[in-house]
Formats: sequence, structure tokens, C-alpha cells
Amino acid sequence: MTELTLAIDAMGGDHGLDVTLPATMDVLQDIEGLHVLLVGKTETIQAGLQRLGQAAHPRLELIHASEQVAMDEAPAHALRNKKDSSMRVAVNLVKEGRAHACVSAGNTGALMAISKYVLKTLPGVDRPAIIFALPCMTGKTHMLDLGANIDVSPENLLQFAVMGAELCSAVEGLKNPSIGLVNIGSEDIKGNELVKEAHQLLRESDLNYVGYIEGNDVYEGKVDVAVCDGFVGNVALKTSEGVAKMIAHFMKLEFNRNLFTRFAGLCALGVLKALRRRMDPREYNGASLVGLRGIVIKSHGGADRYAFANAIREAYNEARMDLPNRIQQHVQETLRQSTLNQGSVS
Amino acid sequence: MTELTLAIDAMGGDHGLDVTLPATMDVLQDIEGLHVLLVGKTETIQAGLQRLGQAAHPRLELIHASEQVAMDEAPAHALRNKKDSSMRVAVNLVKEGRAHACVSAGNTGALMAISKYVLKTLPGVDRPAIIFALPCMTGKTHMLDLGANIDVSPENLLQFAVMGAELCSAVEGLKNPSIGLVNIGSEDIKGNELVKEAHQLLRESDLNYVGYIEGNDVYEGKVDVAVCDGFVGNVALKTSEGVAKMIAHFMKLEFNRNLFTRFAGLCALGVLKALRRRMDPREYNGASLVGLRGIVIKSHGGADRYAFANAIREAYNEARMDLPNRIQQHVQETLRQSTLNQGSVS
Repeated sequence: MTELTLAIDAMGGDHGLDVTLPATMDVLQDIEGLHVLLVGKTETIQAGLQRLGQAAHPRLELIHASEQVAMDEAPAHALRNKKDSSMRVAVNLVKEGRAHACVSAGNTGALMAISKYVLKTLPGVDRPAIIFALPCMTGKTHMLDLGANIDVSPENLLQFAVMGAELCSAVEGLKNPSIGLVNIGSEDIKGNELVKEAHQLLRESDLNYVGYIEGNDVYEGKVDVAVCDGFVGNVALKTSEGVAKMIAHFMKLEFNRNLFTRFAGLCALGVLKALRRRMDPREYNGASLVGLRGIVIKSHGGADRYAFANAIREAYNEARMDLPNRIQQHVQETLRQSTLNQGSVS
Repeated sequence: MTELTLAIDAMGGDHGLDVTLPATMDVLQDIEGLHVLLVGKTETIQAGLQRLGQAAHPRLELIHASEQVAMDEAPAHALRNKKDSSMRVAVNLVKEGRAHACVSAGNTGALMAISKYVLKTLPGVDRPAIIFALPCMTGKTHMLDLGANIDVSPENLLQFAVMGAELCSAVEGLKNPSIGLVNIGSEDIKGNELVKEAHQLLRESDLNYVGYIEGNDVYEGKVDVAVCDGFVGNVALKTSEGVAKMIAHFMKLEFNRNLFTRFAGLCALGVLKALRRRMDPREYNGASLVGLRGIVIKSHGGADRYAFANAIREAYNEARMDLPNRIQQHVQETLRQSTLNQGSVS
């Protein structure tokens, strides 16, 4: 078992300590090589641990942070004014080399701003991105960017593809992950200038690029990594959540219509539970902020104990595979390749 | 019953005459004031009608067109070379005033290109858009643009909003439809320059603008009209289809797992059917190409008889409400208002 240390923002998320403490204890028990630096108001954390009957753990250390970033705080404000926030201190621990990765369920914008400022981007990476695994018919599709970058260049999209490919091969163990570029049609003539230029760059790269994909392909599992800008990715992600929620809402309504439908619901309970498990967002919790000189995992703010534990596991896995280093190497190879291609053209 | 004439492209769509003929006859029977000009190869249509045992109908006239636009044909090619296609002739009939609207299940890009070229856009409208009603928790959300315009200006988005509002009030009978602008967060600071500027224009307009919405809000029924550019709209639409398809796929899988789950499926059959009816894409068939000097309805290419009939009904309803004229008036009022606003600022 690899010995690794994770910094966990104990105060972040909608439920704070009520979720972060039990989840941390769960994962500490599961993974023997895991050490945790739990960051936040130590007195409050201590009290919380005592309530759980877990006052001390040999692989758990508390790190004090006097402040907290609010869930609705402006990222720039958090960056400037919350130097001793649990989020900032957790990221600092990665920067200082005391932790191999950090996890927070706090404010996404603030976490990205702080991580970028403290850790900096990897050489060759212009913009970090948010990547997330979505359920699809055949397993998982990793999609990026999901909201960190609204206006991007073709080169940014190429870098996103490289980062997605490395994450997939590191964490999922895929040899040569397939990459698709999100567009509004699969023909070469479709799309705006941005995607057309990125399409060209991706074709010339050493990536396993399969070409344009459409929105539905993401869920049909046509590719391992779906690349798009942060605006499109964010709208696609939220729209998907909306559809799933609407279907769940209508199912509830229909099964609650009368006595007969309630009985039918009872009969189908096992099936409905299995269905929910297949797409349980808690299973997929833990988005990665990739492209930084360090590993930062963002848990959903509303995550429960089970979901937050999965985000911690994601951080452990990425740290174990030394993801930032792998990304750095691949990005630099791609840059070299791209310069060579340009050289041979001119 | 209002007397109206519709031109129907009999040859378009994946199933051609097999769908368009029976659907047309169904609607002719339903709507007494409806007259239809059925466009395509008259001999083939005649034979098809005979097979249906409907050789003649007092409100049905056949119009010959010797060519056909292929589903995968490049729009520019169809525009230049298929002057006697069923699609082109149907649009011409609207232009000539012989039909109040036309319906086609053919190639979307070609239909848009031909309609733009033949009918032209309304005064004050820079770009036509594709609008479509999506099911949502509270009824329907109309979304535009869904793929006609990839790169748009803030003014285009304002015009889309006006067109969406007019369609909603004309066809759905809503007094003052609410408008939302699709963004990646609801705070004022979020989004790119495009949405920020459009946000400003919408706030200054006389529309019932509620502000930014996110992808999930589309399905929660937060607004009557969701406005976005064609790239974002198309990806959101296709992604939604993908999620719904994935959920249906998993449901099938889980209900077919073993004898017990099959029995549960049998018990739940009524509920599952009711669920499907709620989101049946056939109910929602018929996207409108708005902003043109004429009414053009695009049916899904794979539409069946029931779905295509709904697209014909949509055309009838829009024609009955004289939608293009209403859009033209509202767009010009908005333009006047916008010029006044700019005057008062400078």
C-alpha cells in the first residue's frame, strides 16, 4: 500500500464537518497507507471527532485554519482576504510538499482561483480545467472543461485533451484513451472556427483522437474523453442533471398516482434501486482540477459521507499515479510534436 | 375553423411517403379548415395514396417536384443544385403566397439554407433561429437557437428572445412569457462577454426577462423561453437526448435481468407507459424556423405518422396566429426601444 498524505478541507461543503469527518475516518480505515491532514478550526474538529468517538487516529493530524470560504463568496474576494481559510491552508500544504493532494467540497470558483494562485499551472499548460467522470452506457466518459474556462483557444482544447487522456490512463488504467471533440455535427464542415482549428491540432497530435462527437455521444460511451470549452461543458453537465432530475420527478409522480401504481412501485423497488445505483452521482463524486502543479479534488458541495469519501479516494488514486508529473511530460511531448509539425509545414 | 393551406414536403425524412402520406390524411380529417399542397413526385404520391385507399381528397392537391434533397446532402449543394426538389418547391409555395406555411422532415441544414434564400429574414431580424419545445417539470420550455447560428452577437440573442416570446404567446397562449438567458451561473459576474452584453440588452427590453438560467433550469420549468447560441443549444439538446436514452437503456437492462425483475416490469407497465407518454418526443415534434418571412416547420427526420402529424398541426397553429407578422412587429418595437435607450445613455 502506497504511503500518501492528503490535505482535507474539513470546513467546506454544504454540510461541513458532519460529512467531512465521518468520510475521512471511513477512508482512513479503508486505505492503510493513507495519512490525513485535516484542515480547519481545530477545536471544532476535535469536538466533532469526539462526538464520533474517534478522538485520535495514528494517521490523522489536525492543522489549524481560522477562516472559512463561504459557498457563495466571490472567488477574487476569497483569494485576497481569506489567507487563513481551511481551503487555502489545504492547498498550501500541497504546495509545501506536506500533502500529495488536497480535497475540498467548498466553493468551486474560489478553489480554482486559490489553486491557480498557490500551485501555478504546469509548464506547457496555459489553463487548468475541471474534469469529471460521467456515467455512460458502456462505463464512464470523462468530460472537460466543465466551467473553469469560458473563452478558450484551440491550443487550450488540445491541452485539455492531453490532460484528459493522462487522467484516464492514470486513474482508469486505459492504455490509449479515445478522445472526442464536442461539436454540433460530425461532418468536417460543421462547427465554429475554434473547434475546426482544435480538430486540426488534435488530428496532428499523438492522441487517439476519433474526431467530432455530438452531445448524445457523451452518454453513449463513444469516447473515453470528451473535450469542450467550459461554457459548453457546464451547460451540458447541468442540462444532463436537469433531465435526470425531471425523469426521476415524473417517475415518482407516476408511481404515486394511486394504490395500483404504488403496488407496482413496490414490485419494481429492487429494479429502481439498481437503476439509481447505476447513475448514483455519489459514485461519481470528485471532479479534478487538472493542469496544476499539484492535485486538487473538488467534491460536490452537497456531497454526503459516502460521496465525499469517494472524492478522497479519487485524490488518493491520482496522487498514487503522480498525475501532474504524467500530464507535464505528455503536454511537453505534445508541444514538441506540434512545433515539429509547424516546422515541417513552413 | 380558419381556412389555411399548408405545403408539405412529401419526400423528406427517413421514411418519406410511408409517413408523410398517412400523417397528412390524419390531419386533413382532424382539421376541417386545412388544405394541403403535397409536394413531390406526383406519380409516386398518387400510387402511395391509392395504396392507402385515399386516391383523392377535396382539400388535397398534388404539386410535382422532380428532385429530392438527400438527408446527408451539404446544404450549399442542395441550395445550388436542387431547384426542383420537393423541399424547395414547398418553400417556394410559401413565398408565392399559395401556402401559409410549409412542413418538411428533410435535411435541417438544407431546409434552413433554402428557407433563408427563398423567403428572406423579417425586417429587423438578422438571423433566423431554430426553436423547439422541450418537456419540463411544469409543462414546456421553448429553447432557441438549437443549431442554426454558431457565432452570434448580443443583438442576435435579443432577437431570439423576442421571437421565442412571440411564438410562446401565439402558439401557447401565454400573455407575457418569461425569458431566461442560458449561462454557467446565475450571478451577474458569471459568463462571457457575449452573454453579459445580451443580459444588458434583455434587461433594457420590454420582455419579461428573468435573468440568467443554468442548464438544469430548462427542465425545471423556470422560464417559458430559454435563449442561447446555436452551438450551446444544440449540444444541450443532444446531451439531453443522450441522458434520456441512457436512462431508458439502463431501465430496460434492469427490468430484463431475471424472472423477478421481468415480473416487476409487467406490474409497472402502466406506469412506464405513462412515463414515456410524458416525455414522448413524438408529442413534441415540430421545430420552427423563426425569423423568416414565412412559416417553416422542421419535423424530426425519424418521425413516425403520429409525430409528423404533430409537426403539421404546429404549422397550422403558427399560420393561424400569423406568427411572422407578430414577430416582425415585436422585433421592430424592440429595435425602436433599444435605439431610444441608447439615445438616453449618450
